[in-house]
Amino acid sequence: VSDTSSFTVESLAHGIKPVSEAWRAQARQRLDTLTKPLGSLGRLETVAAQFVAIRREWWQEPIRKGVYVFAADHGVTAEGVSAYPSEVTQQMVLNFCSGGAAISVLAKLYNVELAVIDVGVAGDFGDTEGVLDRQIARGTRNLRREAAMSEDQVLRALVVGAEMADAAALAGQNVVAIGEMGIGNTTAASAITCVLAGVPASVATGHGTGITSEAYAHKIAVVQASVEKHCGSTATASPFEILRCLGGLEIAAMVGMILQAARHQLVIVVDGFISTAAAAIAEAISPASLGYMIAGHQSEEPGHRVLLENMRLRPLLTLDMRLGEGTGAVLAMPLIESAMALYTNMATFDAAGVSGATA
Amino acid sequence: VSDTSSFTVESLAHGIKPVSEAWRAQARQRLDTLTKPLGSLGRLETVAAQFVAIRREWWQEPIRKGVYVFAADHGVTAEGVSAYPSEVTQQMVLNFCSGGAAISVLAKLYNVELAVIDVGVAGDFGDTEGVLDRQIARGTRNLRREAAMSEDQVLRALVVGAEMADAAALAGQNVVAIGEMGIGNTTAASAITCVLAGVPASVATGHGTGITSEAYAHKIAVVQASVEKHCGSTATASPFEILRCLGGLEIAAMVGMILQAARHQLVIVVDGFISTAAAAIAEAISPASLGYMIAGHQSEEPGHRVLLENMRLRPLLTLDMRLGEGTGAVLAMPLIESAMALYTNMATFDAAGVSGATA
Repeated sequence: VSDTSSFTVESLAHGIKPVSEAWRAQARQRLDTLTKPLGSLGRLETVAAQFVAIRREWWQEPIRKGVYVFAADHGVTAEGVSAYPSEVTQQMVLNFCSGGAAISVLAKLYNVELAVIDVGVAGDFGDTEGVLDRQIARGTRNLRREAAMSEDQVLRALVVGAEMADAAALAGQNVVAIGEMGIGNTTAASAITCVLAGVPASVATGHGTGITSEAYAHKIAVVQASVEKHCGSTATASPFEILRCLGGLEIAAMVGMILQAARHQLVIVVDGFISTAAAAIAEAISPASLGYMIAGHQSEEPGHRVLLENMRLRPLLTLDMRLGEGTGAVLAMPLIESAMALYTNMATFDAAGVSGATA
Repeated sequence: VSDTSSFTVESLAHGIKPVSEAWRAQARQRLDTLTKPLGSLGRLETVAAQFVAIRREWWQEPIRKGVYVFAADHGVTAEGVSAYPSEVTQQMVLNFCSGGAAISVLAKLYNVELAVIDVGVAGDFGDTEGVLDRQIARGTRNLRREAAMSEDQVLRALVVGAEMADAAALAGQNVVAIGEMGIGNTTAASAITCVLAGVPASVATGHGTGITSEAYAHKIAVVQASVEKHCGSTATASPFEILRCLGGLEIAAMVGMILQAARHQLVIVVDGFISTAAAAIAEAISPASLGYMIAGHQSEEPGHRVLLENMRLRPLLTLDMRLGEGTGAVLAMPLIESAMALYTNMATFDAAGVSGATA
């Protein structure tokens, strides 16, 4: 991981331009000339116009897609907040690489380049093919008891994410999905949601991978206590401090990737609850970054809906999923490709000799 | 079109077996062994289990997809119910064939075989490549004034649809989308919805391709008067009579295709409002056919939601579309393919050496 001595979170936010409203308007004008009733492609038209507003060009290029899955462990698992043991983080990373995980299957199906980044897994991958070794620590500290990360750890994780956005841009990718794996990370995302959206732990906390009702009540108490410990005395904690105290290494890396991807004018497809928690922190750091984001889906985690509504992001899919890994974001990619194929390839009323509306 | 003298609607419904609950249960068991929290793929798991229940086999084959777009004109356009003139039906069929329409673009993008069937367009296609000539009449009669079709016309249209299902099965397709084009056909679909769902015209009627509020009030009155004329005296009109009096040639053909596709155990992806009106009639004729249907999307037409709820079909997508042509069904196909790819290719916990839940 690069030297972070001269790096600040402000420097990441600095180069992000708002998306182009002029290009969005031009795209809408073109959509209205195509052989379909006005607006009848619904949200696909919104997506196409946003895509053009992000890319600032008439769209002709092929779409090149990547999905970035950041993996890390969480000290808060010591509190008994998850249905699965911590070692599942490492086991699932191996499963990503051998092609057996949901995200591996979907990435292959849709021709999406899969990158798996170890930013803080409590284990050693040796020379496993397919895992990028960017390990900063073997998991976070227990956020219920102390800040999850040091300032330096957060900065290093942000840089890892930013470097992935650089790599995506360099590879010619124009659409990137942001995913994660980390046993315990819905607890972190719930705590972040409490602070950013101003809701109690009971509203921001869900069943994660599937805990019992007893464990669920305990998880709510852990989230509430964590929020009070770190952000109880002030409602004005900075996004950076919220991330440092309540986040995780993979969450910080996702924040870095989102901000840098916005700088590169990439279309960013946000995944589920944890990915959206990172997106919400990115927006808090740079409001302009929001214009680059598309919400792939809405998961079953109740905090996800809270965050999406707070950010006014409307998800493309609602399939009752709760898996993470970037799966919901990758499932939305065909819709984004459809939107751009329609925008680019449909005939106009004039060219096709189709009569317009009489009313 | 074949001889219909010995053909009845009962004969179409006759061979439809209920989907296999035993296979559905086996599919669910397999899904629970895959490396993901139980049920975390949400509705994709429901779709995969339904697919297996329809096909009655462990799934290994590639998915082969077709979309069938039935086109016909409607005499009721004489009442001024549409924003577009009738000739747009023919113009759009030509646009389907030359690749400029939304469905052409989407079918190409997703590798879906596109079939365009003229079952009643008020025009002549000569030897235009890509249009299947199965024309029964040059449009229906005005259903506001008289029955839209004769009994023989309905039977012939049902046979056209059934023959398309035969062709799909013969071509090795296992997933078929059912779409349509016909200026005026939301009026027919609204009238059918009133009778099948028992709702007033104001609930079942929408803005179609985009009429003004004044024209909208008029359209409601036309729908209401049509329903009263043909089905006012009895609440027990047969599905066949509802179809004959209030339907259209493309709607009848879709009913025939759906019933025969269920007989062939194909996965049937229903599209928007008009396609769903045909599906609702198919279900009324053969309740067992419902198990073969997947609702691709929910359109903006208010009657579509009424029908879907009535049939207890939950749409995969809600994208505020209102285009028809099979577009919403084809957009849902990648989700169906995803469900089957995950079902087939994901690793099990045992094979991947991933620990199970501790709770």
